[in-house]
Order: sequence, then structure tokens, then C-alpha cells
Amino acid sequence: MSYQAPLRDMRFVVHELFDASAHCAALGTGLDRELIDGVLEEAAQFTAHELAPLNRGGDEQGCRLDDGQVTTPQGFRAAYRQYVEHGWASMTGPQDFAGQGFPLLVAACVHEMLMSACLSLRIYSGLTEGAVLALHKHGSPALQRDYLAKLVSGQWTGTMCLTEAQAGTDLALLRTRAEPQADGSYRISGSKIFISGGEHDLAENIIHLVLARLPDAPTGVKGISLFLVPKFIANGDGSLGARNAVSCGALEHKMGIKGAATCVMNFDGASGYLIGNANQGLACMFTMMNDARFQVGLQGLGIAEAAYQGALRYARERLQSRGLAGAVAPAQAADPIIVHPDVRRMLLTQKTLVEGARMLAAYTALQLDNEQQQHDSAAARRTALLIPILKGFVTDLGQEVASLGVQVYGGHGYIREWGMEQLMRDSRITQLYEGTNGIQALDLVRRKVLGDGGAELNALLDECAAQAERAAQHPALAALAAPVQQRLTEWRALSAEVLQRCHADVQEIGAVSVDFLHYSAYVLLASLWLRAAECAQQALDNASDEHAFYQAKLHSTAFYLKRILPRASAHREALLGGAACLLALDAEHFAF
Amino acid sequence: MSYQAPLRDMRFVVHELFDASAHCAALGTGLDRELIDGVLEEAAQFTAHELAPLNRGGDEQGCRLDDGQVTTPQGFRAAYRQYVEHGWASMTGPQDFAGQGFPLLVAACVHEMLMSACLSLRIYSGLTEGAVLALHKHGSPALQRDYLAKLVSGQWTGTMCLTEAQAGTDLALLRTRAEPQADGSYRISGSKIFISGGEHDLAENIIHLVLARLPDAPTGVKGISLFLVPKFIANGDGSLGARNAVSCGALEHKMGIKGAATCVMNFDGASGYLIGNANQGLACMFTMMNDARFQVGLQGLGIAEAAYQGALRYARERLQSRGLAGAVAPAQAADPIIVHPDVRRMLLTQKTLVEGARMLAAYTALQLDNEQQQHDSAAARRTALLIPILKGFVTDLGQEVASLGVQVYGGHGYIREWGMEQLMRDSRITQLYEGTNGIQALDLVRRKVLGDGGAELNALLDECAAQAERAAQHPALAALAAPVQQRLTEWRALSAEVLQRCHADVQEIGAVSVDFLHYSAYVLLASLWLRAAECAQQALDNASDEHAFYQAKLHSTAFYLKRILPRASAHREALLGGAACLLALDAEHFAF
Repeated sequence: MSYQAPLRDMRFVVHELFDASAHCAALGTGLDRELIDGVLEEAAQFTAHELAPLNRGGDEQGCRLDDGQVTTPQGFRAAYRQYVEHGWASMTGPQDFAGQGFPLLVAACVHEMLMSACLSLRIYSGLTEGAVLALHKHGSPALQRDYLAKLVSGQWTGTMCLTEAQAGTDLALLRTRAEPQADGSYRISGSKIFISGGEHDLAENIIHLVLARLPDAPTGVKGISLFLVPKFIANGDGSLGARNAVSCGALEHKMGIKGAATCVMNFDGASGYLIGNANQGLACMFTMMNDARFQVGLQGLGIAEAAYQGALRYARERLQSRGLAGAVAPAQAADPIIVHPDVRRMLLTQKTLVEGARMLAAYTALQLDNEQQQHDSAAARRTALLIPILKGFVTDLGQEVASLGVQVYGGHGYIREWGMEQLMRDSRITQLYEGTNGIQALDLVRRKVLGDGGAELNALLDECAAQAERAAQHPALAALAAPVQQRLTEWRALSAEVLQRCHADVQEIGAVSVDFLHYSAYVLLASLWLRAAECAQQALDNASDEHAFYQAKLHSTAFYLKRILPRASAHREALLGGAACLLALDAEHFAF
Repeated sequence: MSYQAPLRDMRFVVHELFDASAHCAALGTGLDRELIDGVLEEAAQFTAHELAPLNRGGDEQGCRLDDGQVTTPQGFRAAYRQYVEHGWASMTGPQDFAGQGFPLLVAACVHEMLMSACLSLRIYSGLTEGAVLALHKHGSPALQRDYLAKLVSGQWTGTMCLTEAQAGTDLALLRTRAEPQADGSYRISGSKIFISGGEHDLAENIIHLVLARLPDAPTGVKGISLFLVPKFIANGDGSLGARNAVSCGALEHKMGIKGAATCVMNFDGASGYLIGNANQGLACMFTMMNDARFQVGLQGLGIAEAAYQGALRYARERLQSRGLAGAVAPAQAADPIIVHPDVRRMLLTQKTLVEGARMLAAYTALQLDNEQQQHDSAAARRTALLIPILKGFVTDLGQEVASLGVQVYGGHGYIREWGMEQLMRDSRITQLYEGTNGIQALDLVRRKVLGDGGAELNALLDECAAQAERAAQHPALAALAAPVQQRLTEWRALSAEVLQRCHADVQEIGAVSVDFLHYSAYVLLASLWLRAAECAQQALDNASDEHAFYQAKLHSTAFYLKRILPRASAHREALLGGAACLLALDAEHFAF
């Protein structure tokens, strides 16, 4: 399937909505608008011409395991080599290890493109960036010296080894062991499952970040430590040393992302090196996990954009039936299906969810930059609140948008060669990995809202309300601002109600969580759409020569408010239904 | 994946809710409760032991095409032979052609089982039943004599050949031609796509029902005729005659239902026989299409039931984390995940949608029986209204329930061997074929609601309101009846509003259609759940010894009303958003 990066919308979000130049200046990166646009343009070329053509074949071929060696689909090796050579791998890497230190606000656009074009290939490099973050923040100078530069450049890749067969969501059940050795290293023994990029042929070395238990460790999550376990032990001069006792035992057969090797990894007394303090592995891993959750949110966005592009192309070309009010293209045998209101409903749902998610991702990226590069504690609180929403909501909408893509194609959507059904299969993993979306919702309600008594949520609400208030002053925007203001007031009241209920009954946390996450996300997106409308109106007021582009933003805002935002009502009513109706049935009485 | 037919719930629906014995007596079939239960029990055995074990392998192997011959997956031939020998094929067939004349109210339960156990295999036989209906209603005595008995018995199978590459939804664009021959037959030439069971190795002959144009036919849908085109021409004595010029040119590579051969069929001057009158093919085909739409609704239900069974089993066995209020199974390493409110939310969503859909399917089946066997015109009006709702809604919920099944399994849901992701892939076709769900919604609003000025919908509403009024009189049911009564009143007002808007602006038909279908379906299911609650309460009042079963029905009703029915609010608000926001954007301004 062909793919063209949505450059105009990305520029709108990055520059017009979030003023990337000022952001870069504040971060001291020395990037200006021209440079940023040049990078986005180059990434657009690379993803359209080098990566997108690999996506279908990657799905058909999948990965192969022979004698412990994994072969990735045809073209993946060459594309990955280009990716590294062109410097895409090192974009966000720390500058003290030859990274380019790009802010996420910009890099996230490139990441989105990589995911739209070929998600399976991006999975290898995305986790490497997370490993870099964790190693840079928690690793010893010696480990950083031996491993970091090669990970930053992408010559080596990283993995994240958490899950075991008996321990998925519940890491307290981890069994992998780490025995201290005389030389300060550890012998790691155990088996991990669902390890993305655990073994492959893209890079000469693979660096596993592995959670394991020391012999004297406390039980539960307080007895977990983080270890670096390389496939080949680094010699210190950048060359490869001994092959370590870590191997791929099997590849999973999956619904999608078939070009991404999902491995069972066996550690048979492999040499490992402690990262951070003993028994504090979970905290160290969370640096990587938080980045991974942000990236998975982007995956939902990337797939959704690809599905929207496919559906829009098809809806403009496919001739079938006449418009309800008569022929629109009377010279042709039938009208293009984009004339049908219900097809437009599907396309506009895709469009406003995709563009809304892009604004949400950019807003989160900006806060992540401020947290990571400026050590801004307000930004850290904000990202803590936003990341479960981004991951939990954008991946759900990614699946919805991909499914709408299939639907717009009718029967052809179900046929593999058209590419739409692959997007549905590929995106389905994003709702599951790096914490299921149910776990994201629990994290949001329990840790991020109850955790501070709703303080950070109220801070976000204040910011949104102030912006809506400002927009409401503009005569052309008042009608758009009104429903947003109303929902923001409702959100505040609902949050207070949720806090009160959850304090009164701990079961309410799990009873409200998913609906509260979705409610919040829909209202937050409404607020971002209003911000987009304000920005667009300003351009129109300044007599921009891109009238149609800005007018489309206003139309899209109206569509979102009228046809998508009503979903918030259903989530609100449902969560107010309470926990009792969830708990009434004994486990043995669910079926007879 | 293992499967056990939900016999207790089926008996509840068939006997307790819809009094199958009385229904059978009215139809004069001579079936009583004991006989019906025996048949259901036998079908449960057959589907659990012979069909369910084929489902995973069928997905992995798919169908193969070699030299025009299609090979179905291992085990399909033997299973189909058993299916025919045990008389499952002829269950609903007309008794004048050795069919058993079972009412659909009962047969639909068996069909659901077939679909839960192995949808791909059921697709071959489901279309055969539709061909029987069309041939029995519209075919000449000679055609019936030559072809019907073998189709009824399942020794031969049927297909439905509508779609061409350029003509999917829009049958007006059909090009396949039919040339009259001196002997009264026709030469059929053209190519059809997406033909389920177009070629296979399950039966010795395949009877295609083909839409084509006569040389002098008017353009558009008024120039389409229906032809019977057999793979082997029947000799009249039941033996096979000449091989006809119809062949399978290719198999589609699909997202799912891989055991069902989806064929490109080429008709190269094949001999065909007119069914019904010239140029009235669409009306004849609609007999088959209506049955197919009912069956596709059942497919959504069948897949959903299978997904619920899988998820429930896993949620009871999988140990992960502790309950929010503390350990529930302290002797184990962790609690079964069914203790978590959010997992229960997913399971109860599955359960109440599945059981709700089963009630809706049974209610529709009962009306179809009355229409087809009693020629009851009120029943015909009711089925016309219900079938687009059943097809459009139950297949959407089938996809949702299958996706929830994946979600309950966490990462394992994405792995093929667990079987959950296959259910998602298999069910996705049901939202597309036999008219996409968007087409179902247009059919509902345009033909079935606007078509009679809302008369039949109001008749249905009167019936629902009367039942709710009755339920409200019972002190134990009043709290459940109140929200249903409120929604029924809202539905009536909304329908009037929709009628008025659609009369004022034809574009509103397409703008409201899908949301109106979903709104209607959620309220209709609420009404059916209240009926179930009334029935359960009666059993409890009579001191039934199945206290837990009936109590579960009351709990499920409460869950549905509190946590699912709120979705109706979102659909209502969205459709009231109107057509203008769908039409504002020029087709070229959807992307820049």
C-alpha cells in the first residue's frame, strides 16, 4: 500500500499549534523551522519509498527461525541499514553518545511515519530507543561506555525482557534468577516470552534489558532487579566478544506484526550486568516502559493514518451507486462513494480521530521533552497523567480507524492484497502490549488521579478551560467553544464524583477505569480540536492563502463535536452505573 | 479451541421466552419440547466433537486451488459427509423435497452451534439452504424436480453469484450476460467475484444461482434476471450429466474464514436456466439474500458465543495479580483474573450482548417461520424491519465480543494457537458481506422505516411498551422496567424526528442511518432483556430449583441496562448532529 506522510498536518501541529521553533530554542537544540521541515520532508521520502513497499511482503513472509537464527522478511535488512546510515536511529539519542538530541515533538512525527509505513520494522528500532533511555539514565559509566554508543547509532538493537509465561501483567510472579559472580557480573537463568526483536538479522548485536531476581531478593515486585544481557559481550573497544548464553527458543505465530520477530528467549546462565540498584529494577525499567507506552500510542496513530489514507483513496476512486440527492458524476457509470453521507461519516471519523490523536501525541511529546531535557517537574506530572490516556485511547482508536478502513473498502477490505485488513491485524497488538489498555486505565485512575487527589487532572482542566474561554470570545468560534466548555465542566464534576466513589469503595477503581479513560480522552481531544480551530481561525482572520486547509480544520472541529464527542455521554453514564452490577455474579454463574 | 453449545440458555430462549412447543404446534410440525431438546443435545455433541476440532487447522491450512480443483482443509470433507448423513443439512428443507421442515426458531440454535464451532465449514451449507429457499419459491417444477432434493439433502451445495469486480453494492452495474438458446436454456458469460463455496471438494455438484442480463434487458437493476447454473448438469434421474462451462479462476486470500473457499467464478457460455420471470431476478435473489442476512446475523452471534466461552474459561484459570480489595484466593500465587472488575466488565459485556443477540435472533426466527410457513403478512412486515437490525448490529457486536475475547487473554490473545484472534478475523467478514452494515442501515431507514411512514416500527414499539408496562407492575421488576420504558418513549420520539428530518432532506437518510440502527438495536435488546428478566422472575416466584440461573438473568439485565444501554445516548446525540457536518467538506479537502 502506498503511503505519503501527512506533512501539511504535521507542520500545522508542530509549528502552528505547538510552536516547535520556540520549543527547540528553549531546549537549546538549535533547530529552526526550516531544519525541522527539511527533516520531516526527508523522512517522508524515506518512509514512502523505502519502507512502505516492504509492509505487505513483510506480512506475507513473516520471520523464520532456523537453528536459533531469525531471518526477517526480504528487504528488512537493507532498509534497516539505510535507516541507520541516514541517521534516523540516532535522532533522539543523547548527544554525549553521538545522538542528535532531537526533541520528541519533532521526532514523534518521524516515528509516526515509520509506523504508518511499516510497523513491524519500526518495532525493532523503537525498543532500542527505550533501552538507550534506560541505560543512559540508570546504567553505570562502564556499561554506558561499552554499550550505549552502538545502541544510539542503531548498529546494535535493544529489547525489553519482562514477561514470563506465568507473569504478564503481574510482574510480582517473575522467576528469572540472577546469581552474583566473583567478577561483579551475574549469571541470568530463566525464560522470557513475547520478546519483540529478541533475535533477528538486522544488527550484529542485541542488548537485552532483563528483569530478574537476586538470590536474597524480597518476594514480589520489590525483589526485581534490572540486568543488561548482551547477545555478544562487548569488548570495550566496540568490537564483539564472546557469544552469551542467551538464545531464541521459538517464534510466536501471531495475528499481525509478522515482520517483527516475537521471541521466546532462553537465558541459560547468561552473563548479565546490573543496571541501577539491586531490587529497584522495576523503577529502572519504567523509564523504558514509559517511553514504550508513548511509542505504542504513536503506533495506534501511525496505523490509523495509514488506514485513513487507504480509505480516502478508495472512497474517491470507487464508483458505486448514485448520491442520495441524485447523480453527482453523471458522466460516469456511478458516483465515487465519497458522495455518500455514511461513507463520509466513516472518513471523517477516521480523519478527526487521527488528527486529534496527532495533536494529543504532540502535546505529550512536548511535555516529555520538558520533563526529560529540562527536568521540569510540572511536565513530569503532566506526562504521568497523559501517557496512559495516549496509550490506552489512541491504540483503541487505531483499531477503530483501521476497522473503518476495511469497512470503506467493502468486501475488498477483507482481501489481503488491498492491505487494509493487515492494518487491523497489526494494530490489534497495540491494545495489548506494554500493559493492556485495561492496565492503562487502572494506572490512570489509581496512580495518576487518585494518587494526587485529582490535583494534576485539575491543573490540566484549568489549562483547557482557559483556552476554551479564550476561544469563546471570538465570534466565529463561540459556537464551537460552547460544547467544549460544557464538557470540561462535566469532566471536572465527574472526576470529583469518581474520586469520591473510589475512596468509598476500592472496587470502583476497576469499575470506572476504562470508561473514565475514554471519557477523559474524548473531552481532551475536543479541547485540542478547539485549539486547532482557534489556530485555524487566526490564520483565516489573517487572510491566509491556504483557505481550504484552515476551513477544513473548522469543519473537522464541528464534525468532531457533533458526531464523535457524544460518545463521552455513553462512557459517563456507563461508569456511573457503578461496581455493584459488575460484582453481583459469582464466578461460577457466568455460564450454565 | 473447545466449544460447548450453551444449551441451557438456548432452552431458556426457545422454550421459556418464545414457547417453541406452542410455535411448533401452530406451524403443524409435530415437534414437542422433548424432541427439540433431543435435537439440540445431538447438535451440541456433533459440533463439540466433530466440528470444533477442525476450526484451527482449517484456518492454518486454508483452501488450495490446483488446476481448477479446490481442496478444503483436512477433515472438512469427512465432517461435511457426517453433517449430511446425520440429516443436519435437511433440517429446514421443505418437506415436499424430503426436508424435515424444522422451524427456524429451533434450527437457528443448531446453525449458531455450527457457526461457533467452525464458521468456515458452515458457510458452504448456509448458502445451500438459501438456494433451496429461492429455488423452492421461484423455480419451475422442472428445475425443482432436477435440483431441489439433492440441495435439500446437502448432497449438492448452492452458491449465490451476485458480485462482479465493478458491481458490489451497486448491482445496477452488473455485466454478466445470458443469451437465450433454442432449447429454452441460456448461455451465461461473465465473471463473478467473492463467491463463497464457488468450487470445493465437499459435494459432487455445485448449483450456482447467478444474476445476469438478457440481451434486450433494460439497464439498471430492472434488467437483471436470475439463473440456475450447475457445475454438472443434472440428468433428471439424479445422476450427473455434462460438466458445465463454469470454473474457478482464483481463490481470494483473506483475513479469515480461510477454510471457506472464496472464488472468482468464470462463466464461459455456461448453460443456465431461468429462475422466476425475466428481469425480475433481483426480487427472486432477495429470497436468498434475506435468508443469507439472517444467517450472517447468526454468524455474528455464533462467533461471539465462541469468544465469550474462550474468554470466560481463561478468566477463571489465569492467575494474575490480586483483587483490588485484597487476595481472593490467598492459597494461590495470584487471583484468577475474573476477580478484577474490569475483566468482569469485559465478560459481562460479552455475555449480555451474546445472550441479548440470541433473543433477538430467536425473535426474528419466530417471525420468519410465521412469514414463510404461515404466510402471515404482519410477520413479513416485522422481519423486514428486524433483518437489517439483526444483520447490521449483531455482526458489529460479534466483532466487538471477539475483540474483547482477545483482550481478556492479554498478549496470548494475539497468538494464533489460542484461537481468539481467529475469531476476530473470521467475524470481520460478517460486517461486510451480504450487504455491508452501512447498507443494512440504509435499508432500515429508507425502506423499512420511511417506507411505511414508521408504521411497522411503531407496531414493534407498542408491543415492547406493553411488555414493559406489564413488567413494571411487578415490584421486583419495576426498577428494571423504568429505564426500558424511558428509552422506548425516547425511541418513539427519535423515530418521529428521524422521519421528519429525512423527509425534509434526503441526505439525512445516510447521515442518521448507522447511528439510528445502533440506537434502535440497543433499545430493542434492552426490551428483550426486560422480557428475560420477567421470565426469570416468574421462575423465581415459582420457587424454581435453578435459582442461580434465573438470578443470573436478573443480574445480567441490570448490567445491560446500567453499562451497555448508555451507548444509545451516544448514538442518539450523534445522529441528531445532522447531515450538514458530513457534507461541508469538499471531497478534495479531506487531506492536503
